[in-house]
Amino acid sequence: MLSGVRDPREISNWDEEVDVLVVGLGAAGACAALEASRSGAETLVLERAGGGGGTSAMSGGVLYLGGGTALQRACGFEDTSEEMFKYLMASVGDAPDEEKIRRYCEGSVEHYDWIVAQGVPFKPVFHYGCSGEPPNSDGLVWSGSERVHPFVDIATPAPRGHVPERPAQAGPLLMQKLCEAVEKSPARIAANHRAVALVQEPDGSVVGAVAESFGEPRNVRARRGIVVTTGGFILNDAMLDAHVPLARHCQLRVAADGDDGSGIRLGIAAGADTANMDQASISLPICQPWGLKRGILVNAQGQRFHNEDDYYGRIGEWALFRHAGRCWLVVDDAVYEKPSYEPFPVAAVGDTPAELAHELGLPEGALESTLELYNRHARNGLDPLFHKTDEYLAPLEKPPFGAFDCTTENSLYAAFTLGGLVTDVDGRVLDPEGRPIPGLLGAGRSTSGVPSRGYSSGLSLGDGTFFGRIAGRVAAGS
Amino acid sequence: MLSGVRDPREISNWDEEVDVLVVGLGAAGACAALEASRSGAETLVLERAGGGGGTSAMSGGVLYLGGGTALQRACGFEDTSEEMFKYLMASVGDAPDEEKIRRYCEGSVEHYDWIVAQGVPFKPVFHYGCSGEPPNSDGLVWSGSERVHPFVDIATPAPRGHVPERPAQAGPLLMQKLCEAVEKSPARIAANHRAVALVQEPDGSVVGAVAESFGEPRNVRARRGIVVTTGGFILNDAMLDAHVPLARHCQLRVAADGDDGSGIRLGIAAGADTANMDQASISLPICQPWGLKRGILVNAQGQRFHNEDDYYGRIGEWALFRHAGRCWLVVDDAVYEKPSYEPFPVAAVGDTPAELAHELGLPEGALESTLELYNRHARNGLDPLFHKTDEYLAPLEKPPFGAFDCTTENSLYAAFTLGGLVTDVDGRVLDPEGRPIPGLLGAGRSTSGVPSRGYSSGLSLGDGTFFGRIAGRVAAGS
Repeated sequence: MLSGVRDPREISNWDEEVDVLVVGLGAAGACAALEASRSGAETLVLERAGGGGGTSAMSGGVLYLGGGTALQRACGFEDTSEEMFKYLMASVGDAPDEEKIRRYCEGSVEHYDWIVAQGVPFKPVFHYGCSGEPPNSDGLVWSGSERVHPFVDIATPAPRGHVPERPAQAGPLLMQKLCEAVEKSPARIAANHRAVALVQEPDGSVVGAVAESFGEPRNVRARRGIVVTTGGFILNDAMLDAHVPLARHCQLRVAADGDDGSGIRLGIAAGADTANMDQASISLPICQPWGLKRGILVNAQGQRFHNEDDYYGRIGEWALFRHAGRCWLVVDDAVYEKPSYEPFPVAAVGDTPAELAHELGLPEGALESTLELYNRHARNGLDPLFHKTDEYLAPLEKPPFGAFDCTTENSLYAAFTLGGLVTDVDGRVLDPEGRPIPGLLGAGRSTSGVPSRGYSSGLSLGDGTFFGRIAGRVAAGS
Repeated sequence: MLSGVRDPREISNWDEEVDVLVVGLGAAGACAALEASRSGAETLVLERAGGGGGTSAMSGGVLYLGGGTALQRACGFEDTSEEMFKYLMASVGDAPDEEKIRRYCEGSVEHYDWIVAQGVPFKPVFHYGCSGEPPNSDGLVWSGSERVHPFVDIATPAPRGHVPERPAQAGPLLMQKLCEAVEKSPARIAANHRAVALVQEPDGSVVGAVAESFGEPRNVRARRGIVVTTGGFILNDAMLDAHVPLARHCQLRVAADGDDGSGIRLGIAAGADTANMDQASISLPICQPWGLKRGILVNAQGQRFHNEDDYYGRIGEWALFRHAGRCWLVVDDAVYEKPSYEPFPVAAVGDTPAELAHELGLPEGALESTLELYNRHARNGLDPLFHKTDEYLAPLEKPPFGAFDCTTENSLYAAFTLGGLVTDVDGRVLDPEGRPIPGLLGAGRSTSGVPSRGYSSGLSLGDGTFFGRIAGRVAAGS
């Protein structure tokens, strides 16, 4: 149980005094610690688990970077920070954080080099055909909605998913390398230490934290600043109920044990503002392999509702938040193939669309009507409703017809939260009047960042590492 | 500009000392002040405007009450608190606040009598045919989704919109009567006083507030408690951007000048938690007169998306949040009539559905397909897609066809926010660990209340007055 804020006058002694205290050793925390300690600040990292890694180590390891990184160039792709900026401004939802996005795009090339310099390897091979981590050790992928309507007309597309090269999974490797770098740095790591309170002066300054380790309290003074990098709140049902209750229907919560919103709650108790707490990344990876994009996604009314060639994170958002997580991917015999991810069970098969619709329990005539209109246009290579690219447009007319179950009850929705503490572009946590709370900084998914109201794969590791570095430097005062 | 929280040691003298301080004289504040002062607490109300009323005085004056109130019975309707409870639990969205809803429903009959006892008159005449304030002085209306799918199968419907009898508009009358009651009570009112900070002890207790009046600060000590009743944040663009950016597209923001979220921000600065900040009541009153419910609402893909016979607040939510505020009401010559509210301009007219669709710029064939399916079922009195009641089901086939513009750009979306400070069922403001912040209470739309993620007309005045009373009594310690 967190205890919110503590008055320094209640702290009889400090068990430890450092310059910079980092709370949480995921990707953001590791980068904050590296930059703080290398800036000359005595740095301590508290990690509630037995070792570093956090949710970052459970992820696909994709970093959304661009603007012409060494990896993009090695793979033969051109990109500019301006095109990356235009794409992100358009794709992360209403009211994007322009200043953060600008800084992120302009610093992206350097940031990639920095990540490499920490020992993280990337294989300079582009992999076509997936929307996130590839099935092999290739290093560059498409990881967003760059090539689909409407974004393809807004910004010149480039693949920006940078995936560490590894034998098995990229997320653990990324965190292995970052944690090794922290261990080699002057920063110290205190594992099995959970921050349970911030110590706050009556003037609002945060000057330390109370940690618990195996039931024992430890008071840590932070002379220069505390960086909160504790992740999101996808494991906290009460917080989900208060902000994004539909996320509770997702079968896969992408999270290490720590994603209970503890750092967000510590910040709130200290008077911090929050933003975009209703937002979550919702991945519905049914159209993988990409040939399945030739199917049509229909809702409980048998209507299409989104271009099926879009990034699976955008499809998931539409499916969950606009259609209550009730939809099916309809294919014909020509399009049918086995989905890459489990579970997307076959919900029904029929010799005719009417038979399929009946099996699915869809309203009489609705699916037939949808298919008739879709096929009529697809024959001409058109999709005037949702503008799917013609690469995936073909009439669905070869029996039998089938439908993959894409309901939250029976299929894979992978969710994590995007909202959190409000920070400025330097990582300072802000109060509701937009003023920094002295001594309190944050990065990663305990803050609202670049993917404020819309997602592309790699944006959380991307902005977590990027703004984690900045917060570490700013906390160190350098 | 608010200044957040102040340390009591900075307060050199108190200009005023009272038992209970109420911030904001809208419906919730008036009720809090009445109950606090009648409980024997010395009570002061700060109101930033020149006089009481707030947004409540600009509203339609509808109070959502039920369970068998004297007005319902006088109009010949039966209702029980259990049916009201079932309806609200189902209709206010995911993760409803069961404890608040239970208390609200069980106290509703008594609360109506109390409102009447404050001098607010209700004419015991039921008015059929509107979804909120009636065009005359009748006292009882349908004001939600009680009689439509799926709620009609969940709870026995009863009209629960209680509208004060008045010559012109009910909201001003309600507030006139409540303010008169406050003036007659022992509570004092300080108009032109804006609360700019809460005074908070290092242990978290709120013990006073700093107000500003014509540029002069005034320090007010509250011995027992402060009740924040300052309304929502529909006028604060920065807060909308952070929580519900689409609301900025609505042409009508239902608000008095004070709805800039000041009380919510004061609470946040004091460490309070917030909930449902992404939620707003969005009214799109196109199907008024009700005969227009026989039309069909279509989105930018020419698809229907909701049962047109639903309450206009639910239709507005769907239109704005799921279809980006881009939709049209399609009618034929048999259904056409002039909408009651302005502006819902005629966007296009055509002799055939195809001509109409072309004029609207809808995808080729989409509207025709939608109409064909709708008409086929409507001929049988069925709507298997959205379950509109058969009263409003008739094929649209008599030319010419027309479409009313229901886009945010060109029509009336009326919006106010629903999210705010987290309170318990006694009105105590909670921190992120669910613990009361001593001395701080709240009610009305500066808090998240009964209409947490879904609306029926009258729920804000209803729960604001109901929980305002409770907060006033609890603050007084009685």
